[in-house]
Amino acid sequence: MQIFINPDRSEWDSITKRPVMNTQDLVGKVQPILAAVKQRGDDALKDYSRQFDGVELDEIIVSANEIDAAESLLHAELKSAIRQAAKNICSFHEEQLSPQKRIETMPGVFCWRKSVGIEKVGIYIPGGTAPLFSTVLMLAIPAKIAGCKEIILCTPPQKDGSVHPAILFAAKITGVNKITKVGGAQAIAALCYGTTSVSKVFKIFGPGNQYVTAAKQLVQQEGVAIDMPAGPSEVCVLADETSKPGFVAADLLSQAEHGADSQVLLVATSLSIVQNIQAELELQLAKLPRKELASKSLKNSRVVVFNDISNAIELVNLYAAEHLIISMENASAISDHITSAGSIFLGNFSPESVGDYASGTNHTLPTNGYAAMYSGVSVDSFVKKITVQELTREGLHNISKTVIHMAEAEGLQAHANAVRVRMVNA
Amino acid sequence: MQIFINPDRSEWDSITKRPVMNTQDLVGKVQPILAAVKQRGDDALKDYSRQFDGVELDEIIVSANEIDAAESLLHAELKSAIRQAAKNICSFHEEQLSPQKRIETMPGVFCWRKSVGIEKVGIYIPGGTAPLFSTVLMLAIPAKIAGCKEIILCTPPQKDGSVHPAILFAAKITGVNKITKVGGAQAIAALCYGTTSVSKVFKIFGPGNQYVTAAKQLVQQEGVAIDMPAGPSEVCVLADETSKPGFVAADLLSQAEHGADSQVLLVATSLSIVQNIQAELELQLAKLPRKELASKSLKNSRVVVFNDISNAIELVNLYAAEHLIISMENASAISDHITSAGSIFLGNFSPESVGDYASGTNHTLPTNGYAAMYSGVSVDSFVKKITVQELTREGLHNISKTVIHMAEAEGLQAHANAVRVRMVNA
Repeated sequence: MQIFINPDRSEWDSITKRPVMNTQDLVGKVQPILAAVKQRGDDALKDYSRQFDGVELDEIIVSANEIDAAESLLHAELKSAIRQAAKNICSFHEEQLSPQKRIETMPGVFCWRKSVGIEKVGIYIPGGTAPLFSTVLMLAIPAKIAGCKEIILCTPPQKDGSVHPAILFAAKITGVNKITKVGGAQAIAALCYGTTSVSKVFKIFGPGNQYVTAAKQLVQQEGVAIDMPAGPSEVCVLADETSKPGFVAADLLSQAEHGADSQVLLVATSLSIVQNIQAELELQLAKLPRKELASKSLKNSRVVVFNDISNAIELVNLYAAEHLIISMENASAISDHITSAGSIFLGNFSPESVGDYASGTNHTLPTNGYAAMYSGVSVDSFVKKITVQELTREGLHNISKTVIHMAEAEGLQAHANAVRVRMVNA
Repeated sequence: MQIFINPDRSEWDSITKRPVMNTQDLVGKVQPILAAVKQRGDDALKDYSRQFDGVELDEIIVSANEIDAAESLLHAELKSAIRQAAKNICSFHEEQLSPQKRIETMPGVFCWRKSVGIEKVGIYIPGGTAPLFSTVLMLAIPAKIAGCKEIILCTPPQKDGSVHPAILFAAKITGVNKITKVGGAQAIAALCYGTTSVSKVFKIFGPGNQYVTAAKQLVQQEGVAIDMPAGPSEVCVLADETSKPGFVAADLLSQAEHGADSQVLLVATSLSIVQNIQAELELQLAKLPRKELASKSLKNSRVVVFNDISNAIELVNLYAAEHLIISMENASAISDHITSAGSIFLGNFSPESVGDYASGTNHTLPTNGYAAMYSGVSVDSFVKKITVQELTREGLHNISKTVIHMAEAEGLQAHANAVRVRMVNA
């Protein structure tokens, strides 16, 4: 890890900078995939499955039998863990449905908002080394609470043409309507244009590799919404002399094991705690099955040590981490000064992994500094809030002069007329 | 207006379709503007002002003197109209600040969300024939309520180098921090990259012509957020035999006068009411100062007549109008079935123009069918909702098995370790 001690403010931008991805190359590779799926639908999807997943698919849609069989393939304790996590995620997200009350802004002028679930949504779940069934929970549960009518899940098939049973189980208990064996940029294309097997949706959610990310950006220009721009996962830990080095080291490693491009930033107000954390890192790293990935990621990581906490907080806000762990005794007081982060973990007993899986908060969070302007996924991400207004005759009378003066000053006579005609003829 | 009577479902897509804009040409024109502003900052902005606005600017930032002078240039009744509208918009939007309560998802596992205003936001206000001071209210008021620290307004200068006094007045009373004389794609570039006069912001809001729209789409790929994709303004009116033809005609015209590309759709369950509305349209159109714009827009507009209300509702939901006026006696009951619209106006005394200016709801709404998945601007658009969690030692104990089983099933050993290390060493 690269250490910076009391870095000058002129260095802060480069310290908090994320690696830049070359997206231009990706666009060139992804665009033909989008075009092929748009043109040839399911046939194109099957061709890509042969090419990228090494699988010959007869059926793209997962059958009811496959879904039912999945349940019996899982250990009872994993199923009960998934059920417990789902319960907690439900409890937290249900509270986010907040119908705005009817407000009388002037006598007789009533305004409110109603929330309606986005009718059709798509969820992308990557394949690869780890079957991300936890992400199924994080996306399907808020979708269901929001009232989305159709939830379509796309995930690449495994080498034997099946989908990992934990993904099927999580999809079943959360009420996903259709599961399809499609991965990569072609899945995003299918959700955007629709094919015989994959329904066209209004908004696409979920993580993915750089091709999936590029495809999501491209389809946005075709009128589909996406959850948020994506980048590699990252954690920032804020530590001082009250931190427990072994805990901090474990948190840094849990981020680093995600992959070589994972970002880890440690900000501390004590050099000696940093040295203790580094010693712990070496001990724990040696025992990890994914130690190669993790140690690559750690090499690119940074440690910043400040004499005073106010600089530390400022740098942390500038970084705008996806996950921010405040491993300090006064974590709660410090957290009041945090203005940019995806999710904050307070104190010694709140490791990032509880939020990744089961505490109830969502793990789909803004990366790459986007926490400066984006929120993580929530029920809000799955609803439209439609404003509604209803005026009584008297209400329109009360507001009429205001509207007429403003409309005429903007040169919009017909806007004024729409009020006048009602005052005269009512 | 083109009339469709009980159209077959196969025609619905084409009836509800919006005109497609050729964005590829625009990108070619806008990209060099973005590059010039990125490279040459204020100098480029002044060059473009000379070229596009016909103005030689010494100062890009509007001075305090100019702002103070604006107040004295406005009629007292316009100022009081603007103040009344601001008050109503405040009342409605203040209710949208909803801190989520602290939830104990399991014993000892506490999760909540905190809202933080996006630190720096940019507001674009178009110039042209109508000075859109109402949009200043609609964007600056929620920004202020959200707690945004810096609100930067960009608007093109008039021919004499000034900004319309109503825009300055609206900006002053809503607490805009800086007003700059910059218009078009170059304003969006300045807000994205920052120049000496225009601050770099995290999110850009506001309407604009096709160049502004294209620029907003392009800067999104540079890490700036935007309010929503934009298109021409539109209204849909749902009418039956209980509608008042004069009111409906006035509403259709108030949309049509926005410009030749404005969209107007009338959906009715009675042919005779449509005939009466058409007669009223001709009468009212003849008296309008902007009748040429309005009649062009009406020519492209559509009327759909159905025998039954359920088809009418379904078509309206498919269209997903920016503004939906339900001009019917049982408007409220009908509105329960509306699932896609930007803003809904109920009954005979709720013309669109009250929402455009002063009822309190926001007039920055999804167009072009985007109401299927986007909401209009609200306080939500100006905040980040950061999730926070805090576990007690016991809370971590209660959730530990769930997290460990899931992490190990996803192959993420270090995630499990972050929990284990705390259970052992606490």
